[in-house]
Amino acid sequence: MSYIKDNFLLTNKTAEKLYNAYAKDMPIFDYHCHLPEKQILANETFNDVFEIWLAGDHYKWRLMRNYGVDEEMITGNASHKEKFLVYCKTLGTAFGNPLYHWSQVELKEFFNCELEINEENAEQIWDWCNEYIRLNKITPQSLIEKSNVKYIFTTNEVFDDLTTFEKIAQKGYAFKVMPAFRADKIMNIEAEKYNEFVALLEALTGEIKDLTALEAALENRLQAFIKVGTTASDIALERVCKVTEKAEAEKVFKKRRSGEAVSVEEAEIFKGYLTYFLFKLYAKYDIATELHVGAMRNNNAVMMAKLGLDTGFDSISEDNSIKLMSRLFDRLNSENSLPKTIVFNLNPKMNAEIMTLIGSFQSGGVKGKLQYGPAWWFLDNKVGMEKHLEDLTATGHIGAFVGMLTDSRSLLSYPRHHYFRRILCNYFGTMMEKGEMTQNTELVGKVVQDICFNNAVAYLKVEGK
Amino acid sequence: MSYIKDNFLLTNKTAEKLYNAYAKDMPIFDYHCHLPEKQILANETFNDVFEIWLAGDHYKWRLMRNYGVDEEMITGNASHKEKFLVYCKTLGTAFGNPLYHWSQVELKEFFNCELEINEENAEQIWDWCNEYIRLNKITPQSLIEKSNVKYIFTTNEVFDDLTTFEKIAQKGYAFKVMPAFRADKIMNIEAEKYNEFVALLEALTGEIKDLTALEAALENRLQAFIKVGTTASDIALERVCKVTEKAEAEKVFKKRRSGEAVSVEEAEIFKGYLTYFLFKLYAKYDIATELHVGAMRNNNAVMMAKLGLDTGFDSISEDNSIKLMSRLFDRLNSENSLPKTIVFNLNPKMNAEIMTLIGSFQSGGVKGKLQYGPAWWFLDNKVGMEKHLEDLTATGHIGAFVGMLTDSRSLLSYPRHHYFRRILCNYFGTMMEKGEMTQNTELVGKVVQDICFNNAVAYLKVEGK
Amino acid sequence: MSYIKDNFLLTNKTAEKLYNAYAKDMPIFDYHCHLPEKQILANETFNDVFEIWLAGDHYKWRLMRNYGVDEEMITGNASHKEKFLVYCKTLGTAFGNPLYHWSQVELKEFFNCELEINEENAEQIWDWCNEYIRLNKITPQSLIEKSNVKYIFTTNEVFDDLTTFEKIAQKGYAFKVMPAFRADKIMNIEAEKYNEFVALLEALTGEIKDLTALEAALENRLQAFIKVGTTASDIALERVCKVTEKAEAEKVFKKRRSGEAVSVEEAEIFKGYLTYFLFKLYAKYDIATELHVGAMRNNNAVMMAKLGLDTGFDSISEDNSIKLMSRLFDRLNSENSLPKTIVFNLNPKMNAEIMTLIGSFQSGGVKGKLQYGPAWWFLDNKVGMEKHLEDLTATGHIGAFVGMLTDSRSLLSYPRHHYFRRILCNYFGTMMEKGEMTQNTELVGKVVQDICFNNAVAYLKVEGK
Repeated sequence: MSYIKDNFLLTNKTAEKLYNAYAKDMPIFDYHCHLPEKQILANETFNDVFEIWLAGDHYKWRLMRNYGVDEEMITGNASHKEKFLVYCKTLGTAFGNPLYHWSQVELKEFFNCELEINEENAEQIWDWCNEYIRLNKITPQSLIEKSNVKYIFTTNEVFDDLTTFEKIAQKGYAFKVMPAFRADKIMNIEAEKYNEFVALLEALTGEIKDLTALEAALENRLQAFIKVGTTASDIALERVCKVTEKAEAEKVFKKRRSGEAVSVEEAEIFKGYLTYFLFKLYAKYDIATELHVGAMRNNNAVMMAKLGLDTGFDSISEDNSIKLMSRLFDRLNSENSLPKTIVFNLNPKMNAEIMTLIGSFQSGGVKGKLQYGPAWWFLDNKVGMEKHLEDLTATGHIGAFVGMLTDSRSLLSYPRHHYFRRILCNYFGTMMEKGEMTQNTELVGKVVQDICFNNAVAYLKVEGK
Repeated sequence: MSYIKDNFLLTNKTAEKLYNAYAKDMPIFDYHCHLPEKQILANETFNDVFEIWLAGDHYKWRLMRNYGVDEEMITGNASHKEKFLVYCKTLGTAFGNPLYHWSQVELKEFFNCELEINEENAEQIWDWCNEYIRLNKITPQSLIEKSNVKYIFTTNEVFDDLTTFEKIAQKGYAFKVMPAFRADKIMNIEAEKYNEFVALLEALTGEIKDLTALEAALENRLQAFIKVGTTASDIALERVCKVTEKAEAEKVFKKRRSGEAVSVEEAEIFKGYLTYFLFKLYAKYDIATELHVGAMRNNNAVMMAKLGLDTGFDSISEDNSIKLMSRLFDRLNSENSLPKTIVFNLNPKMNAEIMTLIGSFQSGGVKGKLQYGPAWWFLDNKVGMEKHLEDLTATGHIGAFVGMLTDSRSLLSYPRHHYFRRILCNYFGTMMEKGEMTQNTELVGKVVQDICFNNAVAYLKVEGK
Repeated sequence: MSYIKDNFLLTNKTAEKLYNAYAKDMPIFDYHCHLPEKQILANETFNDVFEIWLAGDHYKWRLMRNYGVDEEMITGNASHKEKFLVYCKTLGTAFGNPLYHWSQVELKEFFNCELEINEENAEQIWDWCNEYIRLNKITPQSLIEKSNVKYIFTTNEVFDDLTTFEKIAQKGYAFKVMPAFRADKIMNIEAEKYNEFVALLEALTGEIKDLTALEAALENRLQAFIKVGTTASDIALERVCKVTEKAEAEKVFKKRRSGEAVSVEEAEIFKGYLTYFLFKLYAKYDIATELHVGAMRNNNAVMMAKLGLDTGFDSISEDNSIKLMSRLFDRLNSENSLPKTIVFNLNPKMNAEIMTLIGSFQSGGVKGKLQYGPAWWFLDNKVGMEKHLEDLTATGHIGAFVGMLTDSRSLLSYPRHHYFRRILCNYFGTMMEKGEMTQNTELVGKVVQDICFNNAVAYLKVEGK
């Protein structure tokens, strides 16, 4: 029997009551993830537990590398079983790591297996899970519905094919899947394949001969996204760039479109303008913006060459950009074009800066118009979430918070919502038992339900305005 | 009945004992605040609870904005009662926010009202408080004396009229009010109204034709301040500027005095020199310096145009200036002109840098000559104070700490001293119960009393040297 | 009787069990300290408690300065006894400071004295300890052996005489002393005495007429160090410098060798190349690198002139260098020349950045090839260690951690290992009692023993490969 009990992370009776009576059964709104919509549509059964659990999950790979596991056993030619066994061994002593908790919970929730994950039990777990998969038809749809998910926002480039979303909508699933609009590949002008990406966009919208045409193409695509249900967009930047003027950005765009490379400074000029343009566009259509800042990507060139992007070699950037963020928001606000924005920040040292900046641009009509996004990626763990809640309650209004998401590529990651909910209920429950807040459980329970689901529904207007 | 009990924030018996036997009844020394001295002198009764509680308090406005309240209901044309009700509603679910605690405590301490603040009770609280105000003559003096305040340092510009302080002294109040000397309006040379401010100074000290004359005028005014009891000064900077030479600063000063605008770089040259000059001046007269760093002000231009300064649109700056602070302190120290200095830092990521820097310039004769100021503004909350105490005890000597202040514009803010004292006593009490420090309650109680009041009295020499 | 009990810092039964059954009796591997090897070899008895406790310990001096003690009583002409008494007085109310704990534990462990350290008991403690010293022959050897130390890595410059280590090895002590190879004096080209240091190296290796000759001399010395047991090296930088090319560094080296001063920029060019060269050299010989970043040294020029280096006037630097660190590691990794590296970071705001960067360069074959070093110097305290463990478990694999060191100049500092072990066992024990990790005490105990000693032995290959 594993160490995970019913009161996992709930350290007192009030916390248990809040979780069981208010949080546990709320549906899930996963408003930012990286699930492939085609996999959801195809809905194929899995062959073994490795396919569901370890394939493609760079969080797990990274932990194994930290423990000294050879790459051959991680992404190399070792068998599914060998890789699974070494992951179990690695996890057995990874006390305090979020994967140590997540994996154990996933094993219980999705495979009904209570064995503790460690070297000794690894073989037995491998057999159990594969037997379970054989006996139960496990597909993306079954995993999502079992998790009580109502809304999923995948992340899609502007040139992605949207018919998959129409087809999923026709399937009659108990959940809806909608794409968040992401123009990053059109933003990242320094990329080698930039003109290929623009060509993909041109194939959908016609020739893009200048920046004005690019803007029109982006607006055209946003309209197409909106037709399949989109109410949110996504931007990822190492740091916010200075807002620049269109004429400057136009020069850089033309240079790059002619096939020339652009300097770092030129790329920033282009990004500075395009970020500003996109925010204005999102404001025009009342599309929420999910702004991700603070990642330093692809540190390890050897592994980049070997495995490509998003394989576990990113880290947290030191870059500050709070002044530039202030200038961006102020410019947009002055032009009455600041959209609803959720700022996801990866560097915990900047929590206080960003949270207080956000508070300088709130305005009436929307509860929490600017949001400080939940603890994300490297911060998506118990300590990170608790710090996020502490900082958010101290400098903002917790009742307005739109809550958790997975940001995941894995169909097994929904228990992270429950993980967050337990921490949230424990946070409130502990303050209640200490006499630091109201003893009115119903009032607190209502706020818990808002944070679990209702606030996101209202904020993201997924059921219409 | 609200959730606030007698043992609020005191989680064990030792903490309760420390608070009740040593902390609770100590007088208050509020060595930095923004109370208008004219209001204290006028001593007029209030008309309703809105006037005391919500008028002018941008902390509360900001929280309402975070919750999506329309500006009309915050600073707009809505009635006092409407604004009060929406504040109560906002507060009802602002769990963990310092205002959630402060407001509830203020309601109890100043209006003897135990109703929990929320939407449901709002109307009843409005009636109760207004009735209470009608029945009891509530004035600035009564509020201050009820709070057992002995010393108040207001913050005054160098050209402020000091006769108000003389008149207050003649009133025979149970407390003393003295101005801290603040030359910020003479420092901020980039400001549009800079020459108007210098003109105000000239009206008191004669023509200021160059930087040497400015220095003489500042010294002249400091002497006048000292005559009404001043023993402290105040400087607010986004970051410390490089110490520059007088001749360079003179050029910038002359340019600005001729009516020309100055660049950001020129302004920093002037500020770098003037900061250095002022520290030297304060050392000469043994005036303590309260240095505030780390605010990024006036982010939101729309609201700045509408409501002006200090209305809730500031945030925490990302700027580092620890190297420049080191160079400033070292230069002054080398010239035997480093005054007693309390550094207030708004960005928690810099706590460790500044605390350890301070420890490099301590010197004999003064207990804690350089102080790390208490958790301030955005950090003035439970988590911020606990972190401050943790960092301070780990890197400095807690027994030398001069303790809490309000930094407030509100006469109802003195319970923040009690809030701090509870957290302080709980911090020590918890360590005692865990066996991490002496069990000698008397010794600890003495240190508690020093931090509550005695250290500030000794440090600020308010009763003479 | 002092407040220190057997269960000091152990807040529950599981923590006590882990500490007593697994941690307490493990030997100590002090893999980075500043003990003078000559003192160990000489092995002379001490005359009084001041000599062992206060002479040379700038941590204690700094605390006294924070408390307002006059320098005369710290490093001045006051008697040993006077200085000791004032230290006891200072410590009496330094609640929460690491010295408050360390000193009390040292008194118990080394002098069998249970008196609480404070002003009242100071005289009695002075007498007790001196009597104890007279009755027991206390020498460096007896202190080290009493502490169950097995391996000590002192820090030695490349030109240091290594015969002392050979002589210690012949003494038949129960512990081994080996030098960590440190080339900082050859790296810090801006130093006034730079050419004198190079001359010391030349005396051992022959004329160094250019950078290539310098490289050969450094390799020659590393080989000599390896002969006396060296398996680790040490680098201290305020921040990592940009990796530069040899030809650029050569120009700077020649300029400096000709007697000219070099600019800050030139010095960084030289350091950038030499850091890269040294890492490659260490990789070639499989020597672990202990990289220390984040100190801003010698802030106080007056005291520098009076007392010299390492006397308590350093602080934490604000400098970020995570991008440069990423580029350094990536270049080395691309050339298959990244050695085992332990990064010691002094600025807690950068924990997350560095920990996640490290995770981008792990590779198979070595458990935790890149290590995030333990809480160090200003962070070497309860809060710092707990935060280190939280951050490390959240972003890395705790089972791979090489554990604690003293970084000390004092022979009495080994209880800091026990201090760390208590905190470690309490960290795990608390999670176990909360149901947040396995209940398998044996498995956890094994990890505790690995972190206390075994991981360092395996990582540093001190018993051969």
